[in-house]
Amino acid sequence: MSQGTLYIISAPSGAGKTSLVKALLQRLPDVVVSVSNTTRAPRPGEQDGVDYHFTDKSEFERLVENGEFLEYAQVFDNYYGTRRATVQKELEAGRDVILEIDWQGARQVASAAPEAVKVFILPPSSAALRERLSARGQDSEEIIERRMRDAISEMSHYDEYHYLIFNDDFDIAVDELQAIFISRRLRLEVQRERHAGVLAGLLESGG
Amino acid sequence: MSQGTLYIISAPSGAGKTSLVKALLQRLPDVVVSVSNTTRAPRPGEQDGVDYHFTDKSEFERLVENGEFLEYAQVFDNYYGTRRATVQKELEAGRDVILEIDWQGARQVASAAPEAVKVFILPPSSAALRERLSARGQDSEEIIERRMRDAISEMSHYDEYHYLIFNDDFDIAVDELQAIFISRRLRLEVQRERHAGVLAGLLESGG
Repeated sequence: MSQGTLYIISAPSGAGKTSLVKALLQRLPDVVVSVSNTTRAPRPGEQDGVDYHFTDKSEFERLVENGEFLEYAQVFDNYYGTRRATVQKELEAGRDVILEIDWQGARQVASAAPEAVKVFILPPSSAALRERLSARGQDSEEIIERRMRDAISEMSHYDEYHYLIFNDDFDIAVDELQAIFISRRLRLEVQRERHAGVLAGLLESGG
Repeated sequence: MSQGTLYIISAPSGAGKTSLVKALLQRLPDVVVSVSNTTRAPRPGEQDGVDYHFTDKSEFERLVENGEFLEYAQVFDNYYGTRRATVQKELEAGRDVILEIDWQGARQVASAAPEAVKVFILPPSSAALRERLSARGQDSEEIIERRMRDAISEMSHYDEYHYLIFNDDFDIAVDELQAIFISRRLRLEVQRERHAGVLAGLLESGG
């Protein structure tokens, strides 16, 4: 069984990352999105092990000390992180794993797992981004400006990624994301392991 | 304008390479298949510049001496080859170029153009290959055995390629070939050049 590939997918808010990943999973149901650990309390409707692995603070800190996170971050009073063991188990079962994380998490993962494939999703224009960030129409100009600044800050790291996708036409963007996953599975190293028996049969003279 | 990518596509006879490439060109009309030079005489219906660039022997040998071929081979009394200038012109115009050549040509090209992406097409099984190689049903067992030996000899070089495609279900194989082309166009180096203006616009604060 050949190992799955680890994917890091980053984007500014408003680029449509979550919808793209959801559409990809419908097309490639053997791909999994990694479930993060967090110390924040579950919100109504959130399920442990589905939305997050809810972890108490002392346990989280112990895991950090033991180097068990591929990446983690503190946001206000809460920790969020991706456990190495959770990801490794899926990869070893031959499944591709997606981490939806920001550029800072991506850097941590890339240093721990340099073979990870990094994809950055971008909006098609500044105007489209602003429209998406103010879509609900009830936020102040100040809040929208703040979101734009955060988005620009995230986007300024696009050149740390292997692939860029501009999410202009949604269906094309899904096709593109899918093409990255498909093509990685066609690489010699993957195919020769996955189809070792077929290859041996083809090369037997006499057949 | 970012450069196109040079693709080498090889396969044994009977793997369906020609049909796959034809189907790919229908989906990606901006991809071109390189037209080879040959010293053999045109067959009825063949057009100069379309099927081949028909070249006389002394001219071909002069081009060889000047190092103007990315790859060439002698088959019985005739030469066949791919001119560097023909390919370079298309790549510089931003078009992806396909060379349909065997493993020996692939080696020559890879040494002259190490950035070329190499794809090998395989049949799904030895039995399917034999069936395809005897499909016309009017050839002797000896001729079919000879074709099988040639195919096995070509296939024994599969591990010199970057990507392997097993042509079992034709439509899936076309999707896979297309995914390789699409994903290569999404690489950072390509996208940052192709969308330099969009990127600059996105990163302008204030927008």
